[in-house]
Amino acid sequence: MAKLTPRNEDYSKWYNELVTQTGLAENSKVRGCMVIKPYGYAIWEKMQQQLDKMFKETGHQNAYFPLFVPKSLFEAEEKNAEGFAKECAVVTHYRLKNDVENPGKLIVDPEAKLEEELVVRPTSEAIIWSTYKNWIQSYRDLPILINQWANVVRWEMRTRLFLRTAEFLWQEGHTAHANKEEAWDETKKMLDVYAEFVEEFMGIPVIKGTKTPNERFAGAEETLCIEALMQDGKALQAGTSHFLGQNFAKAFDVKFASKEGTLDYVWATSWGVSTRLIGALIMTHSDDNGLVLPPKLAPIQVVIVPIHRNDEQKNAIAEVALKLSNELKQKGISVKFDDDDNVKPGWKFNEYELKGVPLRIAIGPRDLENGQVEMARRDTLEKSFEKLEGLAETIEQKLDEIQENIFNKAKDFRANHTTEVSNFEEFKDVLENKTGFISAYWDGESETEEKIKAETKATIRCIPFSEVDLEGKVDFYSGNPAKFKVLYAKAY
Amino acid sequence: MAKLTPRNEDYSKWYNELVTQTGLAENSKVRGCMVIKPYGYAIWEKMQQQLDKMFKETGHQNAYFPLFVPKSLFEAEEKNAEGFAKECAVVTHYRLKNDVENPGKLIVDPEAKLEEELVVRPTSEAIIWSTYKNWIQSYRDLPILINQWANVVRWEMRTRLFLRTAEFLWQEGHTAHANKEEAWDETKKMLDVYAEFVEEFMGIPVIKGTKTPNERFAGAEETLCIEALMQDGKALQAGTSHFLGQNFAKAFDVKFASKEGTLDYVWATSWGVSTRLIGALIMTHSDDNGLVLPPKLAPIQVVIVPIHRNDEQKNAIAEVALKLSNELKQKGISVKFDDDDNVKPGWKFNEYELKGVPLRIAIGPRDLENGQVEMARRDTLEKSFEKLEGLAETIEQKLDEIQENIFNKAKDFRANHTTEVSNFEEFKDVLENKTGFISAYWDGESETEEKIKAETKATIRCIPFSEVDLEGKVDFYSGNPAKFKVLYAKAY
Ligand SMILES: [Zn+2]
Ligand SMILES: [Zn+2]
Repeated sequence: MAKLTPRNEDYSKWYNELVTQTGLAENSKVRGCMVIKPYGYAIWEKMQQQLDKMFKETGHQNAYFPLFVPKSLFEAEEKNAEGFAKECAVVTHYRLKNDVENPGKLIVDPEAKLEEELVVRPTSEAIIWSTYKNWIQSYRDLPILINQWANVVRWEMRTRLFLRTAEFLWQEGHTAHANKEEAWDETKKMLDVYAEFVEEFMGIPVIKGTKTPNERFAGAEETLCIEALMQDGKALQAGTSHFLGQNFAKAFDVKFASKEGTLDYVWATSWGVSTRLIGALIMTHSDDNGLVLPPKLAPIQVVIVPIHRNDEQKNAIAEVALKLSNELKQKGISVKFDDDDNVKPGWKFNEYELKGVPLRIAIGPRDLENGQVEMARRDTLEKSFEKLEGLAETIEQKLDEIQENIFNKAKDFRANHTTEVSNFEEFKDVLENKTGFISAYWDGESETEEKIKAETKATIRCIPFSEVDLEGKVDFYSGNPAKFKVLYAKAY
Repeated sequence: MAKLTPRNEDYSKWYNELVTQTGLAENSKVRGCMVIKPYGYAIWEKMQQQLDKMFKETGHQNAYFPLFVPKSLFEAEEKNAEGFAKECAVVTHYRLKNDVENPGKLIVDPEAKLEEELVVRPTSEAIIWSTYKNWIQSYRDLPILINQWANVVRWEMRTRLFLRTAEFLWQEGHTAHANKEEAWDETKKMLDVYAEFVEEFMGIPVIKGTKTPNERFAGAEETLCIEALMQDGKALQAGTSHFLGQNFAKAFDVKFASKEGTLDYVWATSWGVSTRLIGALIMTHSDDNGLVLPPKLAPIQVVIVPIHRNDEQKNAIAEVALKLSNELKQKGISVKFDDDDNVKPGWKFNEYELKGVPLRIAIGPRDLENGQVEMARRDTLEKSFEKLEGLAETIEQKLDEIQENIFNKAKDFRANHTTEVSNFEEFKDVLENKTGFISAYWDGESETEEKIKAETKATIRCIPFSEVDLEGKVDFYSGNPAKFKVLYAKAY
């Protein structure tokens, strides 16, 4: 194991080394696509399980729609099509054949050209709403509350493991409603579900808000989002929930007979989070020693490392360790007893620190005599001696403490890196020297936002939901009367 | 709800009506691709959960590899490439642009042609083994025991819901081993896992065996399979486990330093089951009234239908029903209390019969007086009165009985539709008039198999594992000395 490049030396290098050295993911031989390795996938599985539970508790069902979107369906909702057209993988042929000039090689068979090209889904509104058309006749068919776990492809030119990849895994909810209010309630409800998940399970504090028109999902009337702040002071959009209005219903002619006997267009929402969240998880909590995983999502929550000089000691420790393991498993805590003799304890300590295992228990012969173990917390790197008696309960409690501590730490960091500014000089200074969220008044003009972006690369991450008194306030850049108080930041 | 076409009138029509009317799946607007609807996906989720548990119990971890396979990697293992080349969806471009001649329409941007075409994975050996190359240096890196849940695409010309679709969902295990014996053990172990799952959870009896060279997976040294028999007398391959030898290691130059210090090619297996199994589930158990689901995979295991004339009765029944529901939920039994007043009980009876809910409980005011309920079993369509006292236990027991009964019924059907033949006339007669598996001696020649296929469409489904005395036995078709006793059938 090589030591990681420290964050303050090269944050981006630190991130890449961390992701690859911990076995979370790696770049594949397909441009922009990653391989999610077992340790990374195990985190994703834990995330999926929890999210899926929350989706089902809020009345949603899973289904699966095709990977491909015929071009004619793709282009039906014009803004959506325009937004994604520039980054679409397109299937044009359905067969390869032997290359007669290069034995053993294959070429695309020109005779197997598709009559209509197929877009590999960058998002599924088009294919899903063309399907919903046949499912919806009357108000009795509504609401439709469906979620899909799937892979999607967006041909990004500059990719980074988890944060931006050509193919990624996600879930996308697609709901259909009889009226605007219900669709809006759903949009907000799912943003709340995301915020709850990201804060309580990932330990990442988020700001809920609305996107500006410039940052809206292509085809949405409004996009709500949760925004998180990374340790390098850059923001990361952690989840979005879109109020789609009747745009897709109009594009695919999806009408329903209302209770009142009218024929109306259906109202829609869509919402999604992706493997990108794993990037946020890494960047929020980890340190120069490696990953720091929130206990609620750690594939291994506790590791037990025995320290012994002979077989007698080894057996005595193993007995205690296995008893503890069983007690922990009964509490639903995942534990690994690493009794591999080929590797020294010190090496194991480094390994599990790198991998972000929340609690490490070391047991030596002296510990047994004293009825105790050594416990090391990954978040604070603190070590303590803990009594063997009631150890499972102690561990359970410590895991809760760690979960809370990393959330609070991230919250403090965000508080310390959220700055109010009232003029452009301050704005640039904060962006350059302090980084983080910048809270400022905005005149509501896209032009203002665009100019600031062009000069500084910072964008409006969201218009937070909180009520603000705008009386007499002006945009710090244009000097025009303020319409909103917003959060700016450079973003991933 | 229209009545289903009876099986003996048009089996294939019955199947399609059943799949669509029960809301399991439907054809999409993408040629050959299906939409898996919530009820169908709920069954798949139950299957996934159980299989995933069994994979993990046998030491496997999940991971995720790219959807796309660059053509140069795809063609590296020649037999594998040859086997799948004719049915590959190929991505050739990564961008669409506005069609200047047709405002609002998009065309493929010719300037965004990929230097190397990408094949949408029909199976992942190529992309995975090109990745394993970097993961494997020494015997210490072995075995690698990885599974992937994914979508794959095979451009089939004639498709049928679940049974054969251009895109389908599956899992594919890909393991790497230091020696042949270990790889063979893995190949057989995973076949056993599949057989156990399909028999114990899906209630479908299977024959374990080996495929003939003609039916082998492209790129495998040997393919093991489990074969099931459908109610129309056609066989269905329910799962395959491949011993890949060193073929992929050689194609991608994957060598490891052995314990003994030699540099050897790695040994491989792969194994998979897919959403096709849902087709097998439907065709094995269902009847002219609709689906019959095995209790262990039924999204709703028990439905409770109240029958009442007034609110007083309604409330009294609801109280009993909710108490029962809670008891069942505590036992891990999924139950639905359908108290929708807009629909008559008779309509509900039909609906849940169609949807294959294993047990239906009807409760009327008279029943309450008598301390009983009416119970209807979906498998036998039998009705009985059961005491309210201890009803949760009675239900638990009945569900077990149903699970066992449908398995035994399918086993009896298979026994009655497995016929030994000793000459080609008998063979054709059975195929024509009785259908099912035909047990017969084979000379081991692909030519014989091919001639029989050309004349009858029947193929060798497998060479069952059982020991057979071949002394003096001859091939029923060629008259040559027998090398194997095999099972023939027409197949899905
Ligand atoms: Zn700072
Ligand atoms: Zn028969």
